[in-house]
Amino acid sequence: MAGSTFGTLFRVTTWGESHGKAIGAVVDGCPAGLDLCEEKIQEYLDRRKPGQNRYTTARREADSVEILSGVFEGKTEGTPISMMVRNTDQHSRDYSEIARYYRPGHADLTFDRKYGFRDYRGGGRSSGRETIGRVCGGAIAAAVLKEMGITVTAWTASIGTAAANPDNIGEGLKNMAAFRRKIMESELFMPDPEAEKKAQAYLEKCIQNHDSSGGSVECLISGMKSGAGEPVFDKLDAELGKAMFSIGAVKAVDIGAGRNASMSRGSLNNDMYLPDGRKKSNNAGGILGGISDGSSILLRVYFKPTPSIAQTQQALFQDGSVRNVQIKGRHDPVIVPRAVVVVESMAAMTVLDLLLRNMTSRLDEIMRFYKNEA
Amino acid sequence: MAGSTFGTLFRVTTWGESHGKAIGAVVDGCPAGLDLCEEKIQEYLDRRKPGQNRYTTARREADSVEILSGVFEGKTEGTPISMMVRNTDQHSRDYSEIARYYRPGHADLTFDRKYGFRDYRGGGRSSGRETIGRVCGGAIAAAVLKEMGITVTAWTASIGTAAANPDNIGEGLKNMAAFRRKIMESELFMPDPEAEKKAQAYLEKCIQNHDSSGGSVECLISGMKSGAGEPVFDKLDAELGKAMFSIGAVKAVDIGAGRNASMSRGSLNNDMYLPDGRKKSNNAGGILGGISDGSSILLRVYFKPTPSIAQTQQALFQDGSVRNVQIKGRHDPVIVPRAVVVVESMAAMTVLDLLLRNMTSRLDEIMRFYKNEA
Amino acid sequence: MAGSTFGTLFRVTTWGESHGKAIGAVVDGCPAGLDLCEEKIQEYLDRRKPGQNRYTTARREADSVEILSGVFEGKTEGTPISMMVRNTDQHSRDYSEIARYYRPGHADLTFDRKYGFRDYRGGGRSSGRETIGRVCGGAIAAAVLKEMGITVTAWTASIGTAAANPDNIGEGLKNMAAFRRKIMESELFMPDPEAEKKAQAYLEKCIQNHDSSGGSVECLISGMKSGAGEPVFDKLDAELGKAMFSIGAVKAVDIGAGRNASMSRGSLNNDMYLPDGRKKSNNAGGILGGISDGSSILLRVYFKPTPSIAQTQQALFQDGSVRNVQIKGRHDPVIVPRAVVVVESMAAMTVLDLLLRNMTSRLDEIMRFYKNEA
Amino acid sequence: MAGSTFGTLFRVTTWGESHGKAIGAVVDGCPAGLDLCEEKIQEYLDRRKPGQNRYTTARREADSVEILSGVFEGKTEGTPISMMVRNTDQHSRDYSEIARYYRPGHADLTFDRKYGFRDYRGGGRSSGRETIGRVCGGAIAAAVLKEMGITVTAWTASIGTAAANPDNIGEGLKNMAAFRRKIMESELFMPDPEAEKKAQAYLEKCIQNHDSSGGSVECLISGMKSGAGEPVFDKLDAELGKAMFSIGAVKAVDIGAGRNASMSRGSLNNDMYLPDGRKKSNNAGGILGGISDGSSILLRVYFKPTPSIAQTQQALFQDGSVRNVQIKGRHDPVIVPRAVVVVESMAAMTVLDLLLRNMTSRLDEIMRFYKNEA
Repeated sequence: MAGSTFGTLFRVTTWGESHGKAIGAVVDGCPAGLDLCEEKIQEYLDRRKPGQNRYTTARREADSVEILSGVFEGKTEGTPISMMVRNTDQHSRDYSEIARYYRPGHADLTFDRKYGFRDYRGGGRSSGRETIGRVCGGAIAAAVLKEMGITVTAWTASIGTAAANPDNIGEGLKNMAAFRRKIMESELFMPDPEAEKKAQAYLEKCIQNHDSSGGSVECLISGMKSGAGEPVFDKLDAELGKAMFSIGAVKAVDIGAGRNASMSRGSLNNDMYLPDGRKKSNNAGGILGGISDGSSILLRVYFKPTPSIAQTQQALFQDGSVRNVQIKGRHDPVIVPRAVVVVESMAAMTVLDLLLRNMTSRLDEIMRFYKNEA
Repeated sequence: MAGSTFGTLFRVTTWGESHGKAIGAVVDGCPAGLDLCEEKIQEYLDRRKPGQNRYTTARREADSVEILSGVFEGKTEGTPISMMVRNTDQHSRDYSEIARYYRPGHADLTFDRKYGFRDYRGGGRSSGRETIGRVCGGAIAAAVLKEMGITVTAWTASIGTAAANPDNIGEGLKNMAAFRRKIMESELFMPDPEAEKKAQAYLEKCIQNHDSSGGSVECLISGMKSGAGEPVFDKLDAELGKAMFSIGAVKAVDIGAGRNASMSRGSLNNDMYLPDGRKKSNNAGGILGGISDGSSILLRVYFKPTPSIAQTQQALFQDGSVRNVQIKGRHDPVIVPRAVVVVESMAAMTVLDLLLRNMTSRLDEIMRFYKNEA
Repeated sequence: MAGSTFGTLFRVTTWGESHGKAIGAVVDGCPAGLDLCEEKIQEYLDRRKPGQNRYTTARREADSVEILSGVFEGKTEGTPISMMVRNTDQHSRDYSEIARYYRPGHADLTFDRKYGFRDYRGGGRSSGRETIGRVCGGAIAAAVLKEMGITVTAWTASIGTAAANPDNIGEGLKNMAAFRRKIMESELFMPDPEAEKKAQAYLEKCIQNHDSSGGSVECLISGMKSGAGEPVFDKLDAELGKAMFSIGAVKAVDIGAGRNASMSRGSLNNDMYLPDGRKKSNNAGGILGGISDGSSILLRVYFKPTPSIAQTQQALFQDGSVRNVQIKGRHDPVIVPRAVVVVESMAAMTVLDLLLRNMTSRLDEIMRFYKNEA
Repeated sequence: MAGSTFGTLFRVTTWGESHGKAIGAVVDGCPAGLDLCEEKIQEYLDRRKPGQNRYTTARREADSVEILSGVFEGKTEGTPISMMVRNTDQHSRDYSEIARYYRPGHADLTFDRKYGFRDYRGGGRSSGRETIGRVCGGAIAAAVLKEMGITVTAWTASIGTAAANPDNIGEGLKNMAAFRRKIMESELFMPDPEAEKKAQAYLEKCIQNHDSSGGSVECLISGMKSGAGEPVFDKLDAELGKAMFSIGAVKAVDIGAGRNASMSRGSLNNDMYLPDGRKKSNNAGGILGGISDGSSILLRVYFKPTPSIAQTQQALFQDGSVRNVQIKGRHDPVIVPRAVVVVESMAAMTVLDLLLRNMTSRLDEIMRFYKNEA
């Protein structure tokens, strides 16, 4: 299994290289009867599109999606939904030189070792453009979840050391509609204007120094149902962990209290029940024993800095020598803002898949489904 | 799919409840020809056994493994290896009371919601005893890896705020055999005596206060081959992330530089190549583009504090009320030391599975395997 | 993936060699809330037990099943159900000689080539005893189906050229309870006394000649729901086909009209709708486009003769020579009667799995499940 | 899992409806380094193209394939290969009427029941056009097998009762190149001119009577390696059985001697070893215990008659009434000749997948692969 498919019942298979003819995804297992059109998917794709502001690569790609199958009279048919985005702005000429060496921090070396050769044009399959397929799948998953009253919302939590203030975020989350608007209005998808200003200043410095920055994304799943997640290996947190680490450049993931829980004590970290049956805190991040408990799911994802920087670096050449190189091309000084919608997409796919898997957990529910009650 | 199977080619299925008749695992896809006996597995199980010292639960379980199939004349046959550990010290009487309420920080509530009822005796399937099956599988995976020259080593990195000094660890790793001995000699599997002393003092305080502590485990995979991990969804880091988050109580995972990478810059975080072809640093943790690059894999796993504490807590009852409860029974003040071998087991299973999957990546290797080279 | 797991949502993993310590199965994905006890499974196992009459091997195995997990207070918990049957009558001494050669019609040669060596005691993993695990899984699947009003019934349709009269069978099927009784009363599970007499006479001749016979099994699934089966690759007929061909010694499978359909014409083979909405015939065998249509599923499975015969045969030796051998031991002159319950088990597992998979096909049903209907 | 993916390591996902924008396939897990271009795939597609002669539908579809990803500088990259065929000759107007009723022998009813509605234009996903994706996948699998010296060859064995003479076929198989030429020269892909003539006469009569015919396809896999197939559930014959039954209209499958084995005796059906180590017969069809033994694989697949016939038939209407209908449109009087390349494709995909899976069976081979041999 070459690893291009995600999910068990709601399955997304992505394909495509950054400089091939096209990039796309096939969604198999989408339930029949969902209203779906290209605009719904395009809206998600536009959030990861390059060239939106000075903090993203200057490459211009329209990234227009075409639905090729699985939708009839405006509704999903239950059959595979094939989606395609043609690659248009490929500039293959920029990449001829890097064919000869392995860029630091990139997958050049590992692809070569694994496959014997590689598509050196813009990273090929390991390019960030691969996430187009994920966002296509995520847009559909989010549309199904929306019907169920579940919303997935991600935002930039930090860029370098410029972090959104948790209190501001906590306050904002009390009004999700306004919060979501705030995210969309921010150039960096960072719903804390003060932190955003600091982040912008930091990015300016990175750009000046031909350097790049890491950062983190937070994601909240609200309106969640209980029961998603299978005990033991396919826990909800395990599948979310895989989903997040499968995004290129992710180096760490927190669920709920995350690493802070490791420095805490049971009496503080346990979420106590309140007299009304709710909980006083959500250190668990909405997951107990790998199964959603009905409260909001919260996670944080940490990205490394864009490895492509214009500074001189020591690269390994195919002839075994190590020499100084300067990588040309148009690169994001930080990948995080464009990754926000990718985190949202992977979270949506994961949660939907496990909600579907949960439907067969109980005999009484199966009987109710097949109308064999009483 | 109810989620009790891990892996694609090397597959481990675990089964069993903490107070059922037995707990076990079936390993399917173990290559034929490996020397295997019960002692090899018992050695791993003994490292997670309760009752080893005052920082682990006083429960006494022999946890003796029996191999039921898949081994003939001392060698694996290529057929499923079934292993079983009988439950002996079950004390079912202790658990009658907690049948009526949902303990804070436990999976009681979510199991009930998902399945309509639950095995309330000692956590049932969500008990830490479930990891017995994982360790059985991990012991076999580690034995295969050993033949390939690959070693997986985990240790306690922190308990509460008492953390092993990274410099001491770095120094220790230069001599793996000695380092491994140091781990085994430590009561807490913490190969930094000074930090261990602090951790012990901290745990004493926890025990006195009827409280518990979180902590973290580090894991190093040395002798690694390049090529393990599939691009896109089944990246090596993604599968490791899933493996780690599937362990109960894990709330965060770092790969390589982990969350620190998010605060770093490209010029610092990129691992530069040295003139001899090696790398100056290992911020990537041995993985680039989701594929192992041949250097050591490094990860860190963060555990929440044991939720079972003797302090009075507010629990939700099945009748909807919230009342004060005091959980009895024998619980670990910290889960981390016993989780060390579980982390090692999950890492071994993950890496072996992806090494096997990598064998079909290249046509020339397939031809070499089937001896079709001209 | 080493192929010891069957199913996607209802998953059965079997393990064990004929002369190892035990044989068993783990069922993962059984819905919670099903009444289950060992007797229910034993009843199925008893139908494949050796030594029931003169047409089955004289080996005596109690084949008593023990449930090790997944059942609490008499009900399935939704967690893996582990079942084990200890091997008791192993007679390892009988097999020392055949370690040196490959028996005609057996898997001796292919196991050796695939794995480098083999467990030569009684066929090891390729022994018919492997089906014990299938029957354990099938008994549970059948119990779930029964709750849904679905019954799987198999019987011996032919032994050698002695075939049950289709008219007699058709007549019998009109009263399923009586038909099932008739099957159970027949020594060969053949519900046509006249044909059975011919079959017995034929088998006597086979036994006299130290020879063996093939035969066929028919299987009917009644009370079937529509919607089971996924278009394209995981069609209901495709999964049934795989299920049946996965039983050792099966060489052909018919669905509905089977091979006769290939000699028919559209005007005859199409099942016409009757004014009451039912269909005039069932050449389709209850499956259209790979999906159950709500009428009965009908299939026929053809078995080769038992390869172990007492006649002198030419066998290949490990040293490359071909020499005459005489296989000793206690073998079934025909495998078919004992395979009846195996066919039933595989059919039950297949149909249940696809019924569960069907539950996520439609958005409106998902909304109904999660109670999001407006 | 909605069932549009076939295979474990070599995975083919198909998508598309007969009257949607396009039809296609994504192949994930194709080894890197294979020479591949569109012509190689087109050659396979041309064999299933409609409009080739008077025995196939008069629809004209160019069915030109476009490779969208996974190939770089003429070689496969190891990444997903996405292929697309635009639908051109769709004639949607022909299908408006049949939206209201369920055609006998078609999947109209079952799709509606499963999904709540259906794409009624030309069968939608259940159309024979769906096999385009399979043939794309099969062409690539066959190209890999060819490098390994393995050839998959299928042909028309019978149409109605006009069957190729087994002796003629047996004779022909002695010279595979000539045999393959003979197949290609036959309008019906039937390499027995006498039988072909009878089949043509029979088809003429069917056409005159507005009727259709069934038939069968035989398939031979030569140059086969031993070791393909996993014991128990994923036997080579089980996977082949699934592959064949997943083709629409298939109602029966034989492996090797097939159903004839059920009427045979052990002494006749066992393939005896010859003094030179080869076997006197091949009743097993090249598979023992579910594993290839190195001799040729032989199977036969039986197809029902095309359900779309111009005769008046009784159809079920959505309003519950049953009325006479006459189906218009351009339909194949027999599906078999166009299915030949589909059988070949499914067989190639199955065998390749199991050969890849076999590569991890033995520790010594794994050591050899990773060069850890002492």
